[in-house]
Amino acid sequence: MRTSQLFISTLKEAPSEAELLSHKLMLRAGLIKRLGSGLYTWMPLGLRVLRKVEAVVRQEMNRAGAQELLMPAVQPAELWQETGRWDVFGPQMLKITDRHERQFCFGPTHEEVITDIARAELRSYKQLPVNFYQVQTKFRDEIRPRFGVMRAREFMMKDAYSFHADFDSLKATYDVMYGAYSQVFTRLGLKFRAVAADTGAIGGDGSHEFHVLADAGEDLLAYCPTSDYAANVELAEAFAPEAPRAAATQAMAEVDTPKQTACEDVAALLGISVTQTVKAIALVTTTGEFVLALLRGDHNLNEVKIGKVEGMADFRFATEEEIRSNLSCPPGFIGPVGVNANIRIIADRTVAAMSDFVCGANKPKFHLSGVNFGRDLPEPAVVADIRNVVNGDRCPDGKGGVLELCRGIEVGHIFQLRTKYSAAMNCTFLNEQNTLLPMEMGCYGIGVSRIVGAAIEQNHDARGIIWPEAMAPFTVAVVAVGYHKSEAVKAAADQLYADLSAAGVDVLLDDRNERPGSMFADMELIGIPHRITVGDKALANGEVEYVSRRAGEMQKVAIGEAVSFVKSQLA
Amino acid sequence: MRTSQLFISTLKEAPSEAELLSHKLMLRAGLIKRLGSGLYTWMPLGLRVLRKVEAVVRQEMNRAGAQELLMPAVQPAELWQETGRWDVFGPQMLKITDRHERQFCFGPTHEEVITDIARAELRSYKQLPVNFYQVQTKFRDEIRPRFGVMRAREFMMKDAYSFHADFDSLKATYDVMYGAYSQVFTRLGLKFRAVAADTGAIGGDGSHEFHVLADAGEDLLAYCPTSDYAANVELAEAFAPEAPRAAATQAMAEVDTPKQTACEDVAALLGISVTQTVKAIALVTTTGEFVLALLRGDHNLNEVKIGKVEGMADFRFATEEEIRSNLSCPPGFIGPVGVNANIRIIADRTVAAMSDFVCGANKPKFHLSGVNFGRDLPEPAVVADIRNVVNGDRCPDGKGGVLELCRGIEVGHIFQLRTKYSAAMNCTFLNEQNTLLPMEMGCYGIGVSRIVGAAIEQNHDARGIIWPEAMAPFTVAVVAVGYHKSEAVKAAADQLYADLSAAGVDVLLDDRNERPGSMFADMELIGIPHRITVGDKALANGEVEYVSRRAGEMQKVAIGEAVSFVKSQLA
Repeated sequence: MRTSQLFISTLKEAPSEAELLSHKLMLRAGLIKRLGSGLYTWMPLGLRVLRKVEAVVRQEMNRAGAQELLMPAVQPAELWQETGRWDVFGPQMLKITDRHERQFCFGPTHEEVITDIARAELRSYKQLPVNFYQVQTKFRDEIRPRFGVMRAREFMMKDAYSFHADFDSLKATYDVMYGAYSQVFTRLGLKFRAVAADTGAIGGDGSHEFHVLADAGEDLLAYCPTSDYAANVELAEAFAPEAPRAAATQAMAEVDTPKQTACEDVAALLGISVTQTVKAIALVTTTGEFVLALLRGDHNLNEVKIGKVEGMADFRFATEEEIRSNLSCPPGFIGPVGVNANIRIIADRTVAAMSDFVCGANKPKFHLSGVNFGRDLPEPAVVADIRNVVNGDRCPDGKGGVLELCRGIEVGHIFQLRTKYSAAMNCTFLNEQNTLLPMEMGCYGIGVSRIVGAAIEQNHDARGIIWPEAMAPFTVAVVAVGYHKSEAVKAAADQLYADLSAAGVDVLLDDRNERPGSMFADMELIGIPHRITVGDKALANGEVEYVSRRAGEMQKVAIGEAVSFVKSQLA
Repeated sequence: MRTSQLFISTLKEAPSEAELLSHKLMLRAGLIKRLGSGLYTWMPLGLRVLRKVEAVVRQEMNRAGAQELLMPAVQPAELWQETGRWDVFGPQMLKITDRHERQFCFGPTHEEVITDIARAELRSYKQLPVNFYQVQTKFRDEIRPRFGVMRAREFMMKDAYSFHADFDSLKATYDVMYGAYSQVFTRLGLKFRAVAADTGAIGGDGSHEFHVLADAGEDLLAYCPTSDYAANVELAEAFAPEAPRAAATQAMAEVDTPKQTACEDVAALLGISVTQTVKAIALVTTTGEFVLALLRGDHNLNEVKIGKVEGMADFRFATEEEIRSNLSCPPGFIGPVGVNANIRIIADRTVAAMSDFVCGANKPKFHLSGVNFGRDLPEPAVVADIRNVVNGDRCPDGKGGVLELCRGIEVGHIFQLRTKYSAAMNCTFLNEQNTLLPMEMGCYGIGVSRIVGAAIEQNHDARGIIWPEAMAPFTVAVVAVGYHKSEAVKAAADQLYADLSAAGVDVLLDDRNERPGSMFADMELIGIPHRITVGDKALANGEVEYVSRRAGEMQKVAIGEAVSFVKSQLA
């Protein structure tokens, strides 16, 4: 394509609405245009990127044996009432009332609709397994849409749903889809990790998220550089230290901490490591029980994990008043020593292995040092993994590696739903023994439009986007400097454009009558991976100039070899 | 693809919900599945058809120089308020309130959104013309959705919008789009006509509808078999007879018509042609004026045309009471003779040229014969074209042909919007003289999903669908009879499938373990245009059997020539 026939609209500055770098760059490069809060038009250049992602997703889904269909975006409330999700999905679901006062939603996901199709169409184990997918515009009424296409209200999603006669078949398809997802992100040229994940609101057993690694990611991931272990921090198990608890060597003593309430400050005051301190966090259960959770001073409470301790589901943090009335002490100085015996102590595994530690004294302006379990206070009532893992923790896969943390942007999520939806909606089949059973189900989502933003978060520099080739709106830009002034430039550029196109290269000929600097800046901002410049000066030596967007160094190439040279540069 | 890997679900009988043949066949062939009123899932087989149509549309739009983008389906109310359409579009527009109580609609069309983009992005005549299009799911809240995908609530549409510096540029792009539309329907293998059309609610000047011709069409079209004239019946001009009014030869006389109120019945009683009768239709204008419209007995009033006569905009039909009070006569016997001089008579051109005609006597149970203008009653106050054209009318293009009527299904509509939206939304540009002007606009729609239904209405027989090749889910079906029993059949069918695929033919191998009759019936119902049967009997002679879905006659073909034979049969 020629820039003279393509709508291009670049900006020097991003509109102030944009916070995130990818959002700013997408607006500046003219890939998207804002219509309203969380609503974006994909402009011609941006749509080319989206379609390339879509095509890779579709190819890998087909290769994985999934069959494409297309369900309505608008879904009747009745189906959602069958699974009970009409009331529990929350305000992200955009509810609609039609002219006949019937209720619908603009589908945020399609488990109910596909299960309705499956229960009508699939009756025998002979028809199973089957895996359906669609690529579709979805709507989620985010309370605060932001980050451009990364958290838009209207977005493009690939969602797949598989149906099985038994769990083994589900697991087999789940593995195939895991492989297909890995292949999608690999082909798109993205650095990514598949991580074990919580199943959240979709429900079911077993689940992996696929994250594009980027500093701006909303999710904190733990992975092992020496194995394939990776998990959302919320799910990564933290083990007890390998060494057993050391014997007590100090006597317990009150230490004066007039202004020090945070463990870091107490440690600094005492000249010790923060790893010798223990913090107590006061919680209240749904039955009103007052509980103290103990964590090493530098560790953070993992609310998902502690929520799984007996009686702790849906706990909340205690109020200052509750803390004062239970411990006779204000927050900042509380601790586990000398508390009423009916206050349950839940110690993190690491804390349970500590000796001679420092903690709050339950007395304003004082902490205790040299504290030891079994001597100064009872052994904790519960010892459990209740903290987030940190850099250097032992990897839970037992292969001897240590964890590192990084940030990721979730772009895919696969679930073993099991029979959550099929049981609720009576989606059954007859097995070989002629027994009626609910189908096993899996579901598999990819945020197609989100991938575009995530790719930019991972691939950019000060001049703009650096597209991986597979996603680039054009693979090669031919910038003709002086196209409207020099016959030689025009002839050479037109010929190169024709030759590259004929060689199957997706090429953009910049034939605008603009300053060279402005044309280069546009191509760099837009992020075309390879650029050939055709100008009078180099042409006089029978040459053109090649620059890789990522590497940046200019090379002269004989005009006759330009096509083969460019092809050799392609991934 | 193999049927063993494709979800196929055919039905012997269509669900009772389906009225129209195409709807029944789509349900029976398993192309679509109903989710709710006017909401259909495109099953894998149906989606293949839809995608083929979509691809042809996209190719022709790109070839016409239009650029694809993708606007949000959900649109803020504010934009629609700028053009005033928020209140006037009517209940077809599905209005939505988000969690912040802001109003949106699920876009039924996108003039406002694209004009909002154009006014922000286009500022100079140098950027014009530009033509944007999208292929998108639209929603219209039909009061009575029916006919399956032909009048669904959620449907797929291609909508394009062009922006211009002047009317000449708009007309040039309009002509290009007219050509592109013709090319789309020609490539899809459909019999169609482009007809001059009313601009309706979209507004603007100049408009053509594209109709797929089919007996079940909702629109009545007039076309000339000897020229390229075609128009919606509502718009086709009916001329006065070429011969002038003949002189009166009969005296006016009362005739006894005790029970005859309809012109046909009066003519039958009197033994004359209905073309000698005149019917009077009583109308009331918005100012309360009582008017008589005169039409030849066999002609029908065209409400669009009479609405354009002075004072007749938004007229209504008179009540029986109004008729009695103005003419002292009940309906069925009313006529123009002897009426009060302040009752305006609007005569159709054909009536104005009649003499010696028969009409109501304004006296119960009586008509008048031998009636003549200028003698028995004044010349009509207004003579105008107020009727629908009929078979045999002179073609309005003046090339000497005569009109024929046919029925069509509207699948495309192109409009010269002019400045209706740009003026309302302040979408302006600077022309060469640096003057700020509103842009000229065109808009161009194709009902992508509707085309699928319309194609079936035009192409089917008692056994099912007969797809034009370009739209068929698969071009060729290879039916392997005994695939699971005969090694020879399996080997030959697999080889033929591989060879045809390698030759670029979109082929479906039916490798199911079903009765041959059931496999043939499925392929015929689904409408695959070409079928090769591989069976032991013909294979023994080194042959396979070819049948064209449309022609139906079986031919034996040597197995070694099957691929080249099939290719020679393709369009």
